[in-house]
Amino acid sequence: MDWKTLIEDNFELFVSELKEFLKIPSVSADPRFRDDVFECADWLIKALKEAGADKVELIPTERYPLVYAEKNVDDNAPTIWIYGHYDVQPPDPLDQWTTPPFEPHIRDGAIYARGASDDKGQLFIYVKALELLNETGQLKYNLRFLIEGEEEIGSPNLEKYIQNNYESMKGEMVLVSDTALPGPDKPGITVSLRGICYFEVSAYGPSHDLHSGTYGGAVQNPVHALAHLIIALRDPITGRIMIPGFYDDVEELSPQERDLVRQGSWNNDEIKASLNVDTLVSEAGFSPFESATIRPSMDVNGIWGGYIGEGSKTIIPAEAHAKISFRLVANQSWQKINEEFKKFVEDFKVPGIRFEVKTFHGGDPVKTPLDFWGYVKASEAMEKVFGKKPIPVYTGGSIPVLATWQRKTGMHPILMGFGLESDRIHAPDEHFRLDLFRKGIETVCEMLSS
Amino acid sequence: MDWKTLIEDNFELFVSELKEFLKIPSVSADPRFRDDVFECADWLIKALKEAGADKVELIPTERYPLVYAEKNVDDNAPTIWIYGHYDVQPPDPLDQWTTPPFEPHIRDGAIYARGASDDKGQLFIYVKALELLNETGQLKYNLRFLIEGEEEIGSPNLEKYIQNNYESMKGEMVLVSDTALPGPDKPGITVSLRGICYFEVSAYGPSHDLHSGTYGGAVQNPVHALAHLIIALRDPITGRIMIPGFYDDVEELSPQERDLVRQGSWNNDEIKASLNVDTLVSEAGFSPFESATIRPSMDVNGIWGGYIGEGSKTIIPAEAHAKISFRLVANQSWQKINEEFKKFVEDFKVPGIRFEVKTFHGGDPVKTPLDFWGYVKASEAMEKVFGKKPIPVYTGGSIPVLATWQRKTGMHPILMGFGLESDRIHAPDEHFRLDLFRKGIETVCEMLSS
Repeated sequence: MDWKTLIEDNFELFVSELKEFLKIPSVSADPRFRDDVFECADWLIKALKEAGADKVELIPTERYPLVYAEKNVDDNAPTIWIYGHYDVQPPDPLDQWTTPPFEPHIRDGAIYARGASDDKGQLFIYVKALELLNETGQLKYNLRFLIEGEEEIGSPNLEKYIQNNYESMKGEMVLVSDTALPGPDKPGITVSLRGICYFEVSAYGPSHDLHSGTYGGAVQNPVHALAHLIIALRDPITGRIMIPGFYDDVEELSPQERDLVRQGSWNNDEIKASLNVDTLVSEAGFSPFESATIRPSMDVNGIWGGYIGEGSKTIIPAEAHAKISFRLVANQSWQKINEEFKKFVEDFKVPGIRFEVKTFHGGDPVKTPLDFWGYVKASEAMEKVFGKKPIPVYTGGSIPVLATWQRKTGMHPILMGFGLESDRIHAPDEHFRLDLFRKGIETVCEMLSS
Repeated sequence: MDWKTLIEDNFELFVSELKEFLKIPSVSADPRFRDDVFECADWLIKALKEAGADKVELIPTERYPLVYAEKNVDDNAPTIWIYGHYDVQPPDPLDQWTTPPFEPHIRDGAIYARGASDDKGQLFIYVKALELLNETGQLKYNLRFLIEGEEEIGSPNLEKYIQNNYESMKGEMVLVSDTALPGPDKPGITVSLRGICYFEVSAYGPSHDLHSGTYGGAVQNPVHALAHLIIALRDPITGRIMIPGFYDDVEELSPQERDLVRQGSWNNDEIKASLNVDTLVSEAGFSPFESATIRPSMDVNGIWGGYIGEGSKTIIPAEAHAKISFRLVANQSWQKINEEFKKFVEDFKVPGIRFEVKTFHGGDPVKTPLDFWGYVKASEAMEKVFGKKPIPVYTGGSIPVLATWQRKTGMHPILMGFGLESDRIHAPDEHFRLDLFRKGIETVCEMLSS
């Protein structure tokens, strides 16, 4: 028996196992789901044990545990690490899901659930690959799984774990499937991820909500002040972020590398149609795709203040808040941007208003060299399964902890994502195509057995 | 027995009756309180009957009923109307109340509850005055009570009622206590109220929330677009509203009238201390007090969009919303401003964003001439009770329905408020001073018995 036959015979079973994984609402950002996140870690421990890991361990942290597993085949074989996350994004707005986020449904060849693509479905590929190669004796590498439950809240404890344990983390590379393919028939390996710096900014005005009739015109409104700050952060003409020093460390790509980037570009018309917008935007001098991948960006991820219930309430709110995040590119440092942003807000004076900044989390950008042997090996495996040589992919998302991992251990990340940009990750109706789930298992088996 | 002795003997009872009125959470803006609003109308009907009204009637409307009552003393006596409202503002944020909003408490000589000052406490003055003058036979005028339960949501049905019935509404003036005194020892009668125009503006971008890593930099963010619109509405230097035509009809006051306005001005340092702000703002060429009374203003009363829960979520929101209102002054027309604002938003183009405007409600400003006999009579009564001649008060709030009432019936409103600006109406810890509750009863008895 080889792994190919086993996949052929058992794929439906794999899908039903994945459904069990997806049913657990392991939302790390919301404390109401605390027990579910722990339950999810236990589920994964059990799955790795059953898949044949030699040693399986729940590593407690200050919040959600790490799941660690080892499989050793040969002391002389290279060691490959596998990273992924078992936590998921909050599912709201709930009313926009066709089927409930934690009741997985199969529709049109895809599995729909929160976490289907980000990242449970993709992580489960490695559990199945371990099981198959273990059963068939085809595994050629020593494996180390290090899976976290806090990726969606910035990986604070895996970050600490690596900072404290990197000297004993020996290996050649870290395999990750938490990104997207350029297209269902267009294989790609992600070589560039953006960094992130996530803040909450609060504007405080009067000590309590005021009647807007009595005081309107005489008291500074915190919502106005916050709107001013938001607008001041980005030049409306060039789209460039106005924080002094922000672009100082930004790596300007060579024309050759920009050509490589463009190979993976989306089609603007397709993207516009899929998002239902009549136009895309971009930084001056860059395409929308480049603006979302190799250039930094800024977004308000949420805003609230004053009366937001039904009907009307005539107040000047006492306070207003916004969640604001920046995406960073090589070679920006999130710590530096953190300081620069705080300074910007400190220097931004609105009479009658006091601003406060809270840093939620941050992470540096990641780049993997195209001539690294791990990249070449992954590329060959992918070519075998997809029938085409994968392109290097420059992507806009962030996996902050990989930057630390790379810097501290010297392991390059190999980001073989099997999702699609259209998977609606972080949004209602997240899904993962089953044919790509299967090709993912095949690619990983191919790579680890040769 | 005259009314003075009766007040002396029964004031504590009046306070305990007022507590019963305040216990009913008649929040008109929130449908969850629907039954309570109806219960409150019934309570008021009963109270007016017990006070000695000849005829008491619940007038049903599309939403909350009007409470109507008559007391006739002499066919040849002038008829005076009394207006007030039994509904209250929403009580949130609940956690900022020292004692619960619908459990009235007496502290430091004031009664604390939602509606204590706005408007149940002040309305109840007239119920007690009717009772006292009826019992003592001192009433000199025919009275008509017309009380509504929708003032805090823009008086839609009283507005309609007046539009449909104004021809049968005969009388000389309408007495209202729903405003504030210049100070506890500074009597005043409000002669000017601002109008209002209240909107909800929505900005729609992509058809669903997007991952801000994948798309950040390439897709217009609705929160940014809404912030741009908010900022564009007002000149940051002059504080003037930038809607074309907005100031066309604004009455510019004579230097003499501005002197009268200044008589009632607040003390900026006291206001700053009471609101806990380090500075006030103003329209160029006007004081903060003038900016909040005889000049139009604009406020964002609420804003929301994207992820506003705990922790972080990395999205570009699909939509963002703001409640935006304008205060208007004589001779602006809210219908005209409504059209101008809609046009402004229609003309405000942000690529990739669709704006929508919903008009919630509006009302015109009100002015009462200082030489009207009703004003003179009210002024004399107040002088007797307070020992000082009241000043004419120019105030920033709005009672939209009075504009219609004045225009349709020719009755001038006499706005004898007994609240204080520091009563925290529309905010947590709303309260009403008991000495002013009592002086209110005395003033109204004085006026209606002479």
